[in-house]
Amino acid sequence: MRTQPLKLALLGCGTVGAEVARRLATHGDELAARAGAPIELVGIAVRDPARRRVAELDPALFTGDAAELAGRPDLDIVVELIGGLEPARTLVLTAMERGSSVVTANKALLAADGPQLYEAAEKHGVDLYFEASVAGAIPLLRPLRESLAGDRIRRVLGIVNGTTNFILTRMDETGADFADALAEATALGYAEADPSADIDGHDAAAKAAILASLAFHTRITVADVYREGITAVSAADVASAQAMGSIVKLLAICELAPNEQSVGVRVHPAMIPRTHPLASVREAYNAVFVEADAAGQLMFYGRGAGGAPTASAVLGDIVAVARHRVAQGRGVGESAYAQLAVRPVGESTTQYYVHLDVTDRAGVLAQVATVFAAHGVSISTVRQDGHGAEAALVIVTHSAAESALAATVAELRSVDVVREVSSVLRVER
Amino acid sequence: MRTQPLKLALLGCGTVGAEVARRLATHGDELAARAGAPIELVGIAVRDPARRRVAELDPALFTGDAAELAGRPDLDIVVELIGGLEPARTLVLTAMERGSSVVTANKALLAADGPQLYEAAEKHGVDLYFEASVAGAIPLLRPLRESLAGDRIRRVLGIVNGTTNFILTRMDETGADFADALAEATALGYAEADPSADIDGHDAAAKAAILASLAFHTRITVADVYREGITAVSAADVASAQAMGSIVKLLAICELAPNEQSVGVRVHPAMIPRTHPLASVREAYNAVFVEADAAGQLMFYGRGAGGAPTASAVLGDIVAVARHRVAQGRGVGESAYAQLAVRPVGESTTQYYVHLDVTDRAGVLAQVATVFAAHGVSISTVRQDGHGAEAALVIVTHSAAESALAATVAELRSVDVVREVSSVLRVER
Repeated sequence: MRTQPLKLALLGCGTVGAEVARRLATHGDELAARAGAPIELVGIAVRDPARRRVAELDPALFTGDAAELAGRPDLDIVVELIGGLEPARTLVLTAMERGSSVVTANKALLAADGPQLYEAAEKHGVDLYFEASVAGAIPLLRPLRESLAGDRIRRVLGIVNGTTNFILTRMDETGADFADALAEATALGYAEADPSADIDGHDAAAKAAILASLAFHTRITVADVYREGITAVSAADVASAQAMGSIVKLLAICELAPNEQSVGVRVHPAMIPRTHPLASVREAYNAVFVEADAAGQLMFYGRGAGGAPTASAVLGDIVAVARHRVAQGRGVGESAYAQLAVRPVGESTTQYYVHLDVTDRAGVLAQVATVFAAHGVSISTVRQDGHGAEAALVIVTHSAAESALAATVAELRSVDVVREVSSVLRVER
Repeated sequence: MRTQPLKLALLGCGTVGAEVARRLATHGDELAARAGAPIELVGIAVRDPARRRVAELDPALFTGDAAELAGRPDLDIVVELIGGLEPARTLVLTAMERGSSVVTANKALLAADGPQLYEAAEKHGVDLYFEASVAGAIPLLRPLRESLAGDRIRRVLGIVNGTTNFILTRMDETGADFADALAEATALGYAEADPSADIDGHDAAAKAAILASLAFHTRITVADVYREGITAVSAADVASAQAMGSIVKLLAICELAPNEQSVGVRVHPAMIPRTHPLASVREAYNAVFVEADAAGQLMFYGRGAGGAPTASAVLGDIVAVARHRVAQGRGVGESAYAQLAVRPVGESTTQYYVHLDVTDRAGVLAQVATVFAAHGVSISTVRQDGHGAEAALVIVTHSAAESALAATVAELRSVDVVREVSSVLRVER
């Protein structure tokens, strides 16, 4: 055990930061034993240093000057928990330039500027760890970049946003429509006052970019991610999914194209069979399902958010980074050697569920089927529902390209027997 | 990228070894990019070098002298896939002494002599990685020793033996008794001709020792593990579990005692509620459920055995160890700083299911309840089943110490209204 402590600075002291600071203070001996050296918290940057945040900590540790703290040349580890793009980006880059390893939970920053940050870590020979940025405490990023490093990942399917999973679980359990389920999520504290980051899929898209970068050794940013939220998912869609033995989930999907030359990354609601391991992930839990050549199917399950789980992930990274400092080495960093192209969403293939409100007369199915056939989209199952003004066709296709399906739907809208294309949902297996 | 290759020797070339050798040969560029240096396979020790095993490999690589190969001073990595205690132990110790890092899938060796091996790795400043030894390709050991390093693990519950999980799944699905389900597993290749290592729980006990060592930073060997197999699980037990909304699984349970001063490690069949995430782990799949203070509940799921999944785990370790060599560092090793005591199984507490064949007459329940009460075992539920010669009492207790339950059962056997204690199973929540 090294006796000279490693110096750690904390940027930001909200829920997660306060929990990290508290555990550093109260579990010091245990963390030192695991890290191989004592870890000394030398400063905490907050907006208002006069407001003392953590009872166990010396008020003198708090400073309002984050730039000065992050730039100290004697630091070993900087933990960035401010969030957002600036000043977090500048602080993290400064810290790495001065030789500090960095631990962060900042998914927005990684999803936007990951490539620049990974390069800076490589250039300055420091660690950049960010387990907490995706799926909270679930140890996921380290397996992706280390344990599966000798394997080839084909596909990653993730439920990575707890708010939307809570809403979709409620819709599935109670038959509620989206607005009521959102109201319940807000009342229970699962959704923010402005829920857009969650329900429009922005949060999931940032996590998808991080997952895809690690899984495919390719630098992918959030700008490369196709995104649809869950606001258009109706109670009728959820009921249809149930009738088909399926459930609607907001999925982050990262997949290698069959020719292995490109990667598709998309976030959207999709139906999955109830027998799929992801189907049983309920409430605000997260899970990520991985398909790899040799390893086969894997799933990682746990709490995706919350102060304590996120702090657990940050502390795990702190211990790992600290051990590397003690051993004067680095961990397994990112790699972007594969440099695969990003496949446009139009080229991605999956199955589709299409709900059409139609005129109730003979020959409707033939007309509709002709449109699907004209675009090369093969139909797997059809159900004719209702009568009169309620008449509907519920169609599930075989696998088809997104662009072919889009062209099919566009043409269906101009077919006179189709009153409305009331729903289109992807179906993943 | 370093151009000088890292030198790797392979000891053993069975199913897993051949797959590892093949991937090293065919995926060399990809592995080199991930590792930061080319990895050169310099030798393969096999019993009969004249028998050329891998079409892609130069026959000159094969040698019959494992000791000479493992002792080469120019090696960076030795991969031990021979299995068993000797000569594997001597070869691994020799390799580390000569400065090689070691990757192994040898659960028997780690479970028996882990402490000695971890110390040797520490002493010689090399890595000892063994992800493949527990739960095949599921990235599990690395999260335990790294990602959760800043957290405190309370309990690990694992389904870590595919053969027994297959048998118990069949018994649950078809109502088959143990002998018929075992025969099916044997016919399908899930069970060995001599199934004792699986069905008597030896394999699961070895894995439990490895899991407990990592989870609790305490050196635990297989000799410390309490073990019961599944041969006594009857079709009636499985049916009773179903009636209670539960399922019988062979669990490896590693738990911190409430006073945090000792660790209990036990392997035995147990009933768990069907709503528990582990209940849906079917066939030969494996999963490990972890409860930690900050992270909360986590589950890792995937294939527990097979050549390709195991090779995936071995290759992941090879890449990690190779990166550490390139960076001239070491990974996070084992730590035994906690040095907790092993709690005798008699002190462990859980709930119990007790099935009693009884005489069909008034007052039986009162007599039986008196025996439970005398030993301080509180009853949660009782069901009186059948009449005449079929009369039975099905009792589920509240949490009680194993020793108290054992004393209760011993006394029940001498109560005249109790014809037989036909089944006792633990119930885990």
